[in-house]
Amino acid sequence: MIPKKIGITLGDPGGVGGEITLKALSSQKFVSGTNYILFGSRLLLDEEIKAFGLNLEIPTLNKNEKFSRSFISLYEVETPIKNIKRGIPSKENGHASFRFFEEAVKQARKGTITSIVTAPISKHSWQLAGIKFAGHTEYLSLIYPQAIMSFWSDRLNIALFTHHIPLKKAIKRIRKDALLDFFLHLNSSIEKLCTGKHSFLVSGLNPHAGEEGLLGREELDEIIPAIEEAKKKGLPISGPFPPDTVCRNAFNHPDKIVIALYHDQGLIAFKLLSFDTGVNVTLGLPFIRTSPDHGTAFDIAGKGIANPQSMAEAIKFAVKSCK
Amino acid sequence: MIPKKIGITLGDPGGVGGEITLKALSSQKFVSGTNYILFGSRLLLDEEIKAFGLNLEIPTLNKNEKFSRSFISLYEVETPIKNIKRGIPSKENGHASFRFFEEAVKQARKGTITSIVTAPISKHSWQLAGIKFAGHTEYLSLIYPQAIMSFWSDRLNIALFTHHIPLKKAIKRIRKDALLDFFLHLNSSIEKLCTGKHSFLVSGLNPHAGEEGLLGREELDEIIPAIEEAKKKGLPISGPFPPDTVCRNAFNHPDKIVIALYHDQGLIAFKLLSFDTGVNVTLGLPFIRTSPDHGTAFDIAGKGIANPQSMAEAIKFAVKSCK
Repeated sequence: MIPKKIGITLGDPGGVGGEITLKALSSQKFVSGTNYILFGSRLLLDEEIKAFGLNLEIPTLNKNEKFSRSFISLYEVETPIKNIKRGIPSKENGHASFRFFEEAVKQARKGTITSIVTAPISKHSWQLAGIKFAGHTEYLSLIYPQAIMSFWSDRLNIALFTHHIPLKKAIKRIRKDALLDFFLHLNSSIEKLCTGKHSFLVSGLNPHAGEEGLLGREELDEIIPAIEEAKKKGLPISGPFPPDTVCRNAFNHPDKIVIALYHDQGLIAFKLLSFDTGVNVTLGLPFIRTSPDHGTAFDIAGKGIANPQSMAEAIKFAVKSCK
Repeated sequence: MIPKKIGITLGDPGGVGGEITLKALSSQKFVSGTNYILFGSRLLLDEEIKAFGLNLEIPTLNKNEKFSRSFISLYEVETPIKNIKRGIPSKENGHASFRFFEEAVKQARKGTITSIVTAPISKHSWQLAGIKFAGHTEYLSLIYPQAIMSFWSDRLNIALFTHHIPLKKAIKRIRKDALLDFFLHLNSSIEKLCTGKHSFLVSGLNPHAGEEGLLGREELDEIIPAIEEAKKKGLPISGPFPPDTVCRNAFNHPDKIVIALYHDQGLIAFKLLSFDTGVNVTLGLPFIRTSPDHGTAFDIAGKGIANPQSMAEAIKFAVKSCK
């Protein structure tokens, strides 16, 4: 059996990325047949292991070998970092976290790793380093324009039709054809995850899902026709549901996925219900990319008190999905 | 001491309005110095009392007397109802529930009652009866164009800048002057409630509250200037906060009120956190109007299983507020 190879990028060296990664890996019940390859630097990794008193031996990968020598290994990425500055955004840390990620994506595209779990980066550090992407998803969207942002937890699953754009623009994107393409692409991406049976609940756009046109026309003109067409193509899909109750309908149903039409429509509910346990999953790529649903937490970096639960869930998601 | 007089409209006779009102009044720890005047019909009231085996005597008010003769009394409103049709919308029931409400508003405007608590009406019944208002708030908005929709619970309080309009229109309303007027009017309305110290958290419009203009300009051009101006006028107000976390900041802080810029921005969070216990409060009127945060529940009407908690909270809110 060829072992599954999960790449993990250590994120911004000034944040909690290293800490939560190592804590999650030490506490995890490991699935046999899985290797973890950390994309980071030896300096950073050794500092983290020392700082948190962890009993982990992580050899550096010999890049000429197959990626399966050790259970956990380090894929050393060259960075200009000489010592770790914690707790604040910095150019060096921005450069380093971008390089970790860039290298992991390169390996995933080559097929040497099957999925990438990304510890949090600082957008501010990326800016200081002259990196123009708003985050991991935006970088991936450039290579894979059909990348889909989704969020998973044991209480609620959501996929976002649009994410980091102004709300006014998000409304303009609501067109039958674009919605239908999204539904189909999302469905095939989720089938590839092997998460079992699933169904979609589509949120409306307007209050009460437009109330038959009284409170907005997008449901009648665009959303309902797209759903009907998707049903004809065999998709397990229903809606549009009133945006303020659709997540209640999906709550605690692990097979249901809410399709939110814009960023906050999905994330208001998700962040209330699944803080600290949620996983951010980029779908629609040839590989799986997951990450914890929180940021670098600069304020507690290096203190040993960061909660690794969301990171552990992100790793589990990558391990259990079949890609 | 002049007793406080709370008017309660019994709502759609086909729904759970009578049941939850009577259950709430029977179970409530009554505040001395408060009279409850039910706006409804003798036929409906007697049927409800009999159906739910309640031990309540509710005399009919003699309209020439002062409104304080009995602890609970019936203000009989003439309706064409001969027998109660439960569980479905109907023209007769729509007419009746509208008349109960219309009469209560008339009395509140005259000052004979200090506040109105409204049991749920059916918009569908109102339509069948040819009544063009979408609900209580819309009727009140016609008389008081500055009426404000707000939702209160022990976990979260929110006020809506706009409510039953298409999302596209809600975005167009986001203008500095309109926001400032709203903040000032909301603040003075809440001061009149005597709920004690309060402060406002304003939500942004765009993902991450616009991220300094990268994800939308409304925060920079309209929302921040309005907040700054309101602060100069002494309002306890801050923001704009990212829409997907603002309610977490206000969660379990009874003195904080989130200002949501559109219907679902506020109600997605409120309905998740406060289902069954929330109170809908119309502010900005010369009197207080509260109601439970649910509908007629036609599917369980007459079965005696309706939960009166939200109605009880609506009554308590009216009793404790000073208007």
